[in-house]
Amino acid sequence: MENLSSFREVATQFKALFLDSYGVLKNFRGLIDGVQETLDLMAEKGIEFRVLTNDASRSPEQQAESFAHLGLTGIPAEKIITSGMMARNFLQLKIKGGKVAYLGTAKAAHYILQAQLESIPVSHVDFDKLDEIQALVFLDDEGFDWNFDINKTVNLIRRKNMPIIIANSDKLYPVNKNEVSIATGGIAKLVESIINKSFIHFGKPDTQMFNYAFEDLNKNGQQFSKEDILMVGDTLHTDILGGNKFGVKTALVLSGNTTAKDADLAIRSSGIIPDFICESIVG
Amino acid sequence: MENLSSFREVATQFKALFLDSYGVLKNFRGLIDGVQETLDLMAEKGIEFRVLTNDASRSPEQQAESFAHLGLTGIPAEKIITSGMMARNFLQLKIKGGKVAYLGTAKAAHYILQAQLESIPVSHVDFDKLDEIQALVFLDDEGFDWNFDINKTVNLIRRKNMPIIIANSDKLYPVNKNEVSIATGGIAKLVESIINKSFIHFGKPDTQMFNYAFEDLNKNGQQFSKEDILMVGDTLHTDILGGNKFGVKTALVLSGNTTAKDADLAIRSSGIIPDFICESIVG
Amino acid sequence: MENLSSFREVATQFKALFLDSYGVLKNFRGLIDGVQETLDLMAEKGIEFRVLTNDASRSPEQQAESFAHLGLTGIPAEKIITSGMMARNFLQLKIKGGKVAYLGTAKAAHYILQAQLESIPVSHVDFDKLDEIQALVFLDDEGFDWNFDINKTVNLIRRKNMPIIIANSDKLYPVNKNEVSIATGGIAKLVESIINKSFIHFGKPDTQMFNYAFEDLNKNGQQFSKEDILMVGDTLHTDILGGNKFGVKTALVLSGNTTAKDADLAIRSSGIIPDFICESIVG
Amino acid sequence: MENLSSFREVATQFKALFLDSYGVLKNFRGLIDGVQETLDLMAEKGIEFRVLTNDASRSPEQQAESFAHLGLTGIPAEKIITSGMMARNFLQLKIKGGKVAYLGTAKAAHYILQAQLESIPVSHVDFDKLDEIQALVFLDDEGFDWNFDINKTVNLIRRKNMPIIIANSDKLYPVNKNEVSIATGGIAKLVESIINKSFIHFGKPDTQMFNYAFEDLNKNGQQFSKEDILMVGDTLHTDILGGNKFGVKTALVLSGNTTAKDADLAIRSSGIIPDFICESIVG
Repeated sequence: MENLSSFREVATQFKALFLDSYGVLKNFRGLIDGVQETLDLMAEKGIEFRVLTNDASRSPEQQAESFAHLGLTGIPAEKIITSGMMARNFLQLKIKGGKVAYLGTAKAAHYILQAQLESIPVSHVDFDKLDEIQALVFLDDEGFDWNFDINKTVNLIRRKNMPIIIANSDKLYPVNKNEVSIATGGIAKLVESIINKSFIHFGKPDTQMFNYAFEDLNKNGQQFSKEDILMVGDTLHTDILGGNKFGVKTALVLSGNTTAKDADLAIRSSGIIPDFICESIVG
Repeated sequence: MENLSSFREVATQFKALFLDSYGVLKNFRGLIDGVQETLDLMAEKGIEFRVLTNDASRSPEQQAESFAHLGLTGIPAEKIITSGMMARNFLQLKIKGGKVAYLGTAKAAHYILQAQLESIPVSHVDFDKLDEIQALVFLDDEGFDWNFDINKTVNLIRRKNMPIIIANSDKLYPVNKNEVSIATGGIAKLVESIINKSFIHFGKPDTQMFNYAFEDLNKNGQQFSKEDILMVGDTLHTDILGGNKFGVKTALVLSGNTTAKDADLAIRSSGIIPDFICESIVG
Repeated sequence: MENLSSFREVATQFKALFLDSYGVLKNFRGLIDGVQETLDLMAEKGIEFRVLTNDASRSPEQQAESFAHLGLTGIPAEKIITSGMMARNFLQLKIKGGKVAYLGTAKAAHYILQAQLESIPVSHVDFDKLDEIQALVFLDDEGFDWNFDINKTVNLIRRKNMPIIIANSDKLYPVNKNEVSIATGGIAKLVESIINKSFIHFGKPDTQMFNYAFEDLNKNGQQFSKEDILMVGDTLHTDILGGNKFGVKTALVLSGNTTAKDADLAIRSSGIIPDFICESIVG
Repeated sequence: MENLSSFREVATQFKALFLDSYGVLKNFRGLIDGVQETLDLMAEKGIEFRVLTNDASRSPEQQAESFAHLGLTGIPAEKIITSGMMARNFLQLKIKGGKVAYLGTAKAAHYILQAQLESIPVSHVDFDKLDEIQALVFLDDEGFDWNFDINKTVNLIRRKNMPIIIANSDKLYPVNKNEVSIATGGIAKLVESIINKSFIHFGKPDTQMFNYAFEDLNKNGQQFSKEDILMVGDTLHTDILGGNKFGVKTALVLSGNTTAKDADLAIRSSGIIPDFICESIVG
């Protein structure tokens, strides 16, 4: 890989960073070595940040706790923006009463509760009481029986016309150096292709989370323009495409989904071009 | 539904029938009422038939046994042609030695054994011995842990470049009056969309099974031309499209996937036009 | 169609309207009868509005002029937000110098000029001087030779790795009561499927234009919350999906793409559910 | 590229060859150097062949003439099998009377005439006389005005429910060393994606042409089994996938669509694995 930039040199040209979480701050092994030093340096230089993560399995509070648990300081819940929050806001505004069925863990269902709605796992849905179900949300790839509950989801959607929400559109996530696992978005894709319907997707690359983070940065009247912001991510189709479209500069890091070996081909074959490429956010 | 034809009047204009199994001869309840009488009448009139089924979960022998068990006589194994047989023939010609990994039941793996190859369920594959795996076959939607084994399949395909075979491309099958279940082809679709690779699909609507049945009908020098044959099925995208493409007349029956209520819209919206529409093969 | 609401009764519950243009304010015949009265009523009631249009063929100024020319008063350029503006902002922030190739009319190329960039129609691109081309934009379905220039576009993209921008993702637009025409997004779709690359799409249903309109409404400190706003459109997959996702109430009007005859089926089969359905914005 | 085989050594292990035309026998420059010698050698060794080409723009007779015109002897019309012939057979069996509309040149429309049907170019179709139109065929990418006639095709399909036939599913063909042109299948893909309907596709990789060629080889009682046959082509997704599926050995040649530089990656990323890889059919 040629044309690698030093992350610190790049980052210090900006006034704020949007950071993806998985593949940027941490990976399957835990924290990426040296991340604390980078965050400290940013704090020292007065560079603001938000974490933008396609994750609907845990709340910002739970994710902040998890960073703290791994030993990383300086990432409070209020700086974490999840695709689950986008889905929650949608539910809050569009669904008035009734129950929201979900695929995922009980932990993930907190997003439904926060929208002041009652949650019910797909496995508990009673097909004789479909009137009470007002929406369906794909929250997580865990917490249910894939065979039984995905089939039940297909039948639920065939029988009840309602908004179907994909709270995380990512198709895959890495579980170790060589292996991946199908993510919520991959399961949703299966159901979409079988049902032949358009569901409502949340998360990068849609610009919604970027806008949310941008408004949040400026909520106290501080003046951040788009040119002051760098989006940092490990995935071309979500982080970099979303950042390019929102209109901020983008940096691809090679510490996650996109490896040094594949980056060049992936960029050429996708046409999604980051402004910078860095080994990781360290160094 | 207007323009319904009497199946017997239509069928007796032909010298041979290609019959789909599920939705035509039987459904989730068992045999379709009156099927025996129709088969007897065809036998009496000297009308030949073959059963063409997108099924790789059981051998023709097991399926013949199942018909007999349900009380239907006159369907011997040698008149049953399955998409599993097409996959078996492919394996036999293309894979020389080594093991073939599969998703499905041990029963379905008979197709691999018949190809003189060793079978191994995906769950037993050892990632440190990938050299011995020569192909992967999607045989059935049962017989494995969806969460664990589908994820393992994704990783297996990422690590080993080999032919991937879908022995049944159907995405759904009905399990009762109102409910469907995701079929082998639906699971394969999920993996294909996640891996972004072309797998090798067998079964209708590809014309391969039709050709096999056609050659089989004519193997003793009897003279059946394509104009002598009627394909009878309950699914537009497999039975009717395949028959139309192979060049035989086609009859849609409303006793399975396509209901009287939906037929008109389904035909108009797909552009797949059967020559005849009949309530069922009875009457 | 049951459950039709009176547009005026619905609209007057809100403080601001987002209005699609084609199919809502006008159609192939010209202005929709009675639109002026509705706009006047909204003005009288102090209801604000923005026009949100997936159009990159003409500038807001040209579109305002066209409304005036049709005899409609009260829609100044600054209330018109086009997908072309989103593309222009992207170009301005991401492309520094060089030429931007385009498919479309010279009129549409104004969006490139406004980004302080040099524009060049695809037909004029010299394959020996590809270094100077920094991006490619699909602006309009007119202004070029489909056969020659679409083929040239395919080859241009194969030879030059650069951002490809779709300034209007609509696939079709109506040209009279019974006929449609392929729009910019349809041509882009052809090229994408042939090239197998991800291009960068602008326009509804992405929430970017909604956010832009929302920020614009609030730029003088007026306080519009999302609950104060109604998105009005004639197309489920763009206007209604986008509005639902952005988190505002949505009204489908039956004066354009979606007819009274088709609306019910379209909503059921897409799962995209408007909050209200109205004959048109009149009455 | 490692593992290159000598074509002559490979070919002489078989009793018959299925040869793709474009990229194997000829290319945009004319005949591939040395093709005559290879064909002569095959004839000398008694190795039979058929040419299998995804082409519906010209009849076998016209193609044979074109080979002769280029100076290549020994390829009579009766050894050439085109996807246009498959479409013709379909029309002959399924369409009884009426007119068949087409996109393509008058030359290509011969396939419709051979099916004893009346042909009418899309441009001449009168929307007030749609009753007389019984089918629509995509034959060629030339012979019509892309803008006007593709749009007219979209509207024709929206207004008339009838079989839509794609007589050549190839999306692209090379026009010189560096450039490609959108083929019939690419145009059809655009219309399919806009109409959201299933059309009826002919040509490789469907096994229909392989079966036709196989039956033709054996029509005089000569005994060719599938193991005696080698499919030779330059395109993984058509020639090699089709041959693999039909159950014959396959050889990829690097003289056309797939270049030595790309072959390895293309095979790995598609999972379509040829049995042999050869520079060209020469040497």
